Amino acid sequence: MKIGLDVMGGDFAPDATIQGAVLAREQISSNDRIFLFGPSDIIESKLKEIGADSTGFTIVHSPEIVGMGERPIKAFTQKPNSSIANGFKYLKSKEIDSFSSAGNSGAAMVGAMYSVNTIQGVIRPSTLGVIPRENGGMNIILDIGTNPDIKPDVLYQFAILGSLYSEYVLNVKNPKVGLLNIGEENEKGNLLCQSAFRLMKDSKDFNFFGNIESRELFSDKVDIFVCDGFTGNIVLKQIEAMYSIMLRRNLVDDYFSRFDYENYGGSPILGVNGSVVIGHGISNAKAIMNMILQSKQLHESGITKKIKRAMNKYTQSK
Amino acid sequence: MKIGLDVMGGDFAPDATIQGAVLAREQISSNDRIFLFGPSDIIESKLKEIGADSTGFTIVHSPEIVGMGERPIKAFTQKPNSSIANGFKYLKSKEIDSFSSAGNSGAAMVGAMYSVNTIQGVIRPSTLGVIPRENGGMNIILDIGTNPDIKPDVLYQFAILGSLYSEYVLNVKNPKVGLLNIGEENEKGNLLCQSAFRLMKDSKDFNFFGNIESRELFSDKVDIFVCDGFTGNIVLKQIEAMYSIMLRRNLVDDYFSRFDYENYGGSPILGVNGSVVIGHGISNAKAIMNMILQSKQLHESGITKKIKRAMNKYTQSK
Repeated sequence: MKIGLDVMGGDFAPDATIQGAVLAREQISSNDRIFLFGPSDIIESKLKEIGADSTGFTIVHSPEIVGMGERPIKAFTQKPNSSIANGFKYLKSKEIDSFSSAGNSGAAMVGAMYSVNTIQGVIRPSTLGVIPRENGGMNIILDIGTNPDIKPDVLYQFAILGSLYSEYVLNVKNPKVGLLNIGEENEKGNLLCQSAFRLMKDSKDFNFFGNIESRELFSDKVDIFVCDGFTGNIVLKQIEAMYSIMLRRNLVDDYFSRFDYENYGGSPILGVNGSVVIGHGISNAKAIMNMILQSKQLHESGITKKIKRAMNKYTQSK
Repeated sequence: MKIGLDVMGGDFAPDATIQGAVLAREQISSNDRIFLFGPSDIIESKLKEIGADSTGFTIVHSPEIVGMGERPIKAFTQKPNSSIANGFKYLKSKEIDSFSSAGNSGAAMVGAMYSVNTIQGVIRPSTLGVIPRENGGMNIILDIGTNPDIKPDVLYQFAILGSLYSEYVLNVKNPKVGLLNIGEENEKGNLLCQSAFRLMKDSKDFNFFGNIESRELFSDKVDIFVCDGFTGNIVLKQIEAMYSIMLRRNLVDDYFSRFDYENYGGSPILGVNGSVVIGHGISNAKAIMNMILQSKQLHESGITKKIKRAMNKYTQSK
């Protein structure tokens, strides 16, 4: 497998990305290659600096840099030789099988949508987050920020995307979808949730549990929480905030230690024709390593094909 | 002062409410009276059962019961002799100065709006929640569920209501308002936040900080978080969920122990012509006591008058 990494993405790039790539290299088979996108002089000197063996790496010289504040579309059109633009070019031409970046996440989303493209039938691709369950295992929540304003049919599709991720990447059998809401009764919520509930309640495209409140985020009542990207982003950053206070106050036990983002890598982009993972801006080497391994796992799960098949069925049934 | 309590409201009523009233009675001046609304036979026997002195209490016989699942408006029209309907009748006629209930919160909101009425100029009254700051003091967040779908001008008014509460009830000088959002930059967020930001950014009606993320909910960057009632409800129930897991796992220290809802009583309804507090359904005696004391404090702060004055100024400036 050929695994792409944006060496210049993230607050601690290129040190953290190079170190993360070296750590990931140790975890994968010798048949796999990691493609490093970035300025070749920087990559080579960093690899040398940490005494890493460059076997198993392919460097794709990409001298231009996309900043965190840059407008995504502009970054792509004006910097075709940036690490992120080249990564998506390689992904599109299938010279790599997966690509991940901890850089400008808007640029990564735009890159994915305009290079490998959105899967036919998918209205909006989505990013997802994981939430450790108190009883073991992981819940997922989507969307987490890519789509702050959405229509009910988009939320419906998120339920399909999330179900496939839960089933084929997290290996949950017949995962349950909950509509994140402010009450459990059928008629509860804002207009979006009320409409989405009506669309979802008799769904044959996924296993719908019903409305579910945020007090159940850490329980095992459902496997997937669907919500608009505004709500999902608020939820995840709030978890991070409370976790970091607990960390500061020495209150983290074996359960809460599972909240450390480093263990998870990043968020896949679901609904595009390729395996793409967006990492946390503050990713350190361990987080980068996990992001790389996650992009590999995403590709190997065959989820893109599963989504294509599901969307085909969904489109035909409408 | 004459303080009203819905004896029949809450999951543990009437035991918890009567006990809470007796506890509150010990905290207030002998010139104050607590008006107990509910079936007089039940109230009298419960008071006798716990050996409480009935001096200082006025019982207002209200034999009808409004259930938690009942539709608010129906409950009022069909049960004019319920504890909650009678409470609001007394509040309207100024036979009591404040009223609180841990019962059907929808019915309490409807009761407030149709008895004492919304303050002129207020588009939608709001309920608020408190969030303990790590550095001491309290943040507030509004709305927390009453208004799941709102327009930007309603959010603007929540900033006024919240500022007055923070200043006159919590004694914060020149409190800062943050617009709860998924990014700090000006153009971030969903359509509601983007429009609200434009309305708020040059406001002279309150001290606007700007956009603020949920990772700052426990910090002292702002004093007031404004958001739609859907988002606020998700935020508060998520805090409760994480707190209760911490409690279960013995991870609560001096800071997190301040998350115990029992200490706060309930949520005031801001924007109506009277001092009304809605309690948590699961309120125990201590929570009821604090709800009663909070409704007293709300009345004494004179916030209703402050809101009237502010809304008058706001309406004239438009």
